[in-house]
Amino acid sequence: MQARDVLISEVGPRDGLQNIATIMPTPAKTQWIRALAASGLQEIEIGSFVHPKLLPQMADAEEVARQALQIPELDVLALVPNLKGAERALAVGVRKISIPVSASQSHNMANVRMSCEQSIAAIADICAYRDEQAKNGVRATVEVGIASAFGCSREGIVPEDWVMEMAERLARAGADSIGLSDSVGAANPVQVRRMFGRLRHLLGNRAGGAHLHNTRGQGLANAVAAIEAGVTTLDSSQAGLGGCPYAPGATGNIVTEDLVYLLESMGLDTGIDLGALMQARALLAQALSGENLYGHLADAGVNRGFRYANPGRTRQCPPPGAHQDSCQSLAETCGLASDKDRA
Amino acid sequence: MQARDVLISEVGPRDGLQNIATIMPTPAKTQWIRALAASGLQEIEIGSFVHPKLLPQMADAEEVARQALQIPELDVLALVPNLKGAERALAVGVRKISIPVSASQSHNMANVRMSCEQSIAAIADICAYRDEQAKNGVRATVEVGIASAFGCSREGIVPEDWVMEMAERLARAGADSIGLSDSVGAANPVQVRRMFGRLRHLLGNRAGGAHLHNTRGQGLANAVAAIEAGVTTLDSSQAGLGGCPYAPGATGNIVTEDLVYLLESMGLDTGIDLGALMQARALLAQALSGENLYGHLADAGVNRGFRYANPGRTRQCPPPGAHQDSCQSLAETCGLASDKDRA
Repeated sequence: MQARDVLISEVGPRDGLQNIATIMPTPAKTQWIRALAASGLQEIEIGSFVHPKLLPQMADAEEVARQALQIPELDVLALVPNLKGAERALAVGVRKISIPVSASQSHNMANVRMSCEQSIAAIADICAYRDEQAKNGVRATVEVGIASAFGCSREGIVPEDWVMEMAERLARAGADSIGLSDSVGAANPVQVRRMFGRLRHLLGNRAGGAHLHNTRGQGLANAVAAIEAGVTTLDSSQAGLGGCPYAPGATGNIVTEDLVYLLESMGLDTGIDLGALMQARALLAQALSGENLYGHLADAGVNRGFRYANPGRTRQCPPPGAHQDSCQSLAETCGLASDKDRA
Repeated sequence: MQARDVLISEVGPRDGLQNIATIMPTPAKTQWIRALAASGLQEIEIGSFVHPKLLPQMADAEEVARQALQIPELDVLALVPNLKGAERALAVGVRKISIPVSASQSHNMANVRMSCEQSIAAIADICAYRDEQAKNGVRATVEVGIASAFGCSREGIVPEDWVMEMAERLARAGADSIGLSDSVGAANPVQVRRMFGRLRHLLGNRAGGAHLHNTRGQGLANAVAAIEAGVTTLDSSQAGLGGCPYAPGATGNIVTEDLVYLLESMGLDTGIDLGALMQARALLAQALSGENLYGHLADAGVNRGFRYANPGRTRQCPPPGAHQDSCQSLAETCGLASDKDRA
C-alpha cells in the first residue's frame, strides 16, 4: 500500500446508494466501484449485509462484494447490522466489517431496534465470532462508528462523556477501532477537535476515523478539524450521496471530490487522482440520472496553480495565457469534466 | 455597539447583486438591507459607486446609501473603484469605503484597467482625499481588500511575498485596513492561516478581514482557519450570492446564514439572530425569483441542541419528543423556514 497522509474511505456504494430511491443494478455498481478504486481510493464500503427486505438497494451485497474483492489491493469494507450480517460478509470473503451503533438511545432503537447496551453486547458477540474465525485462519477486522456522537435530531445534545463511555465499552467488547459519526450534521470544528482528542487519549491507536455529514455546510470545516486532532481516516461519499432519513432536505456525506481537492491543496497526500475520480463520478451520474448529485469541484474544476501533494500525480493545467478571458474550459483542460458536460 | 467575537460584514447588496442578471429595484434593496440590519448585522456593504454604465445593478447606489444611513447604528460600507466613486460616497454620507485591488496584474488590469502600481497610487490619492475631508470634519475610513491574494484564475499561483509587499505599500499609502480576498476560491486553510498570520505580523491592527468564496466548497473551512489566525472580520453574502465572473459554475461568497450558524455553534458570538436572518432571506428570495440561492441551513434548519453563543438570543427548539419520527418541521419550529416554505 502506498504511503499517504489521509486515508479516505469511500462510503458511497453503501451510505450513498442505500439512501436514494434508485436501485442501482449490480453491474453498474461494480463498474462504479472499479472506477473509484482506479482513482486511487484504498478503501471502499461496498454495501450493507442487511436483510434485503429492509434495504432492497443492498440486496446484491454478496455479488458486489465478490466483484470488489477481485480488485487488487483494495480494502473492501462492508456494513453489518448484526451477527447474521457478519457471517454473510465473512462467508463471501470480506475481511473488514463496520457496525453501526448510536450514542442516542432513541436513534439506536429506531435504527437497529436495540438499546445502546444491547448493541454493545451484540458487538461483543460479533467480536467473539471474529476471534473464532481467526482460529480457522480467517482474520477479519471489526470497526465501529458511533452514530449521533455529536448530537441527535431526536434527543438534541448527546452528552460527550456518554459517547466516551460507549467508546471505552466498545473497545472492551473487542472492536478493533471505534470512530465517531456526525450522522445528522450537528458537529462543529471545536467539538470535533475536542471529541477526537478525547477519543485518541482514551483509546490510543484504536481510535477510529471521522464520518461527517455536510447537512449544514460545515462538513469540510469539520474534516479539517478532525485532521488537526490527529484523525487519519475520513469517510466521504462521491457526489455527497447519503444522508440522514431523519433530516429531510439535508445533503448527505461530505463530498469525496471536494474533500480530496481540499486535502491535496493543503499539501496532504490522499493518493487519489482527481481526474480519475471525476470519471467515476461520470459513471455514477449516468447510472443515477434523476438523482441529485452534490459537490462544488464538479462545477468549478480545480484552480490554476493547484498541485497534488504527491508530485507524481500532478496533472498539468493549461499554460499561462490559455484562459485570458475566461476559465470556462478549465475543468475540461485539467481533466475534470462537469456533470453537465458528461450528461 | 454590542460586543461580539466576530464581525460579519454582509456584502450581498454589493458583491451579490452586481453578479446576477436581475436588477433589484431600489425599494426591494432597501427593504432587504433593513431586514439584514434587523437580524443584528452590524456592517453591510450596500453597493458600489461605480459608473452606472459598467454596472447598471449599482446605478442607485446614492439612494440605497441614503436609506441605509438612516438605520440606527448600522455601519454602512460602500465599494468605490476610484476617487470619483469616493467623492460620490462621501458626498452622500457614507463614512466607510472599500477599494478593490488585485495582487494579480492581469486580474487588476481586467478589473480596474490599471497596473497594481497604478492602483496603489490611486488608493494613495483617495487616502489623501480622505485626509482633506477630515479637516472639514468628515471622518471616513478606507478599507482595501487585496483580491486574488490566494491565487488567480488568470495567473495561477500569486507569490505570497508579493501579496505582503502590496499590503505594506497599501498601508504606507494610507489605507486604514488591508484585508485579503480569495476572489476565485483558490485558498486552502493552511494557506489562509499562514497568510493572515503574516499580515497581522506585518500590519498589526491594520490587518483587515477575510473575504472568502466558496467556489470549491472550502469556504467555511477557510473561514475557521481565518478565525484561528486571529481574523475578526469576515465578509459573507446572504444566500451565497456573488461570485467570480471568471469562474463560471462557481458558487459565490460564503453564505452568511451557514457562517453565522457555524460560528455560533462553535461558541463564537456574532450578534446575529438566525431566525431574523432567514426572514431577510425570504425577502431576497421574493425579490430574486428565478435566481439561484445557495446555502445549507435554509434547507436543513438548525439542529436540536443548537445554542447561541449569547444566551440572550437563544431561540427555543421544540421540546424532546416533538420529533420522534422526523425533524421535517424542525426548521419552522425553530423559526427558520426554507425557501420552499416561503415561496
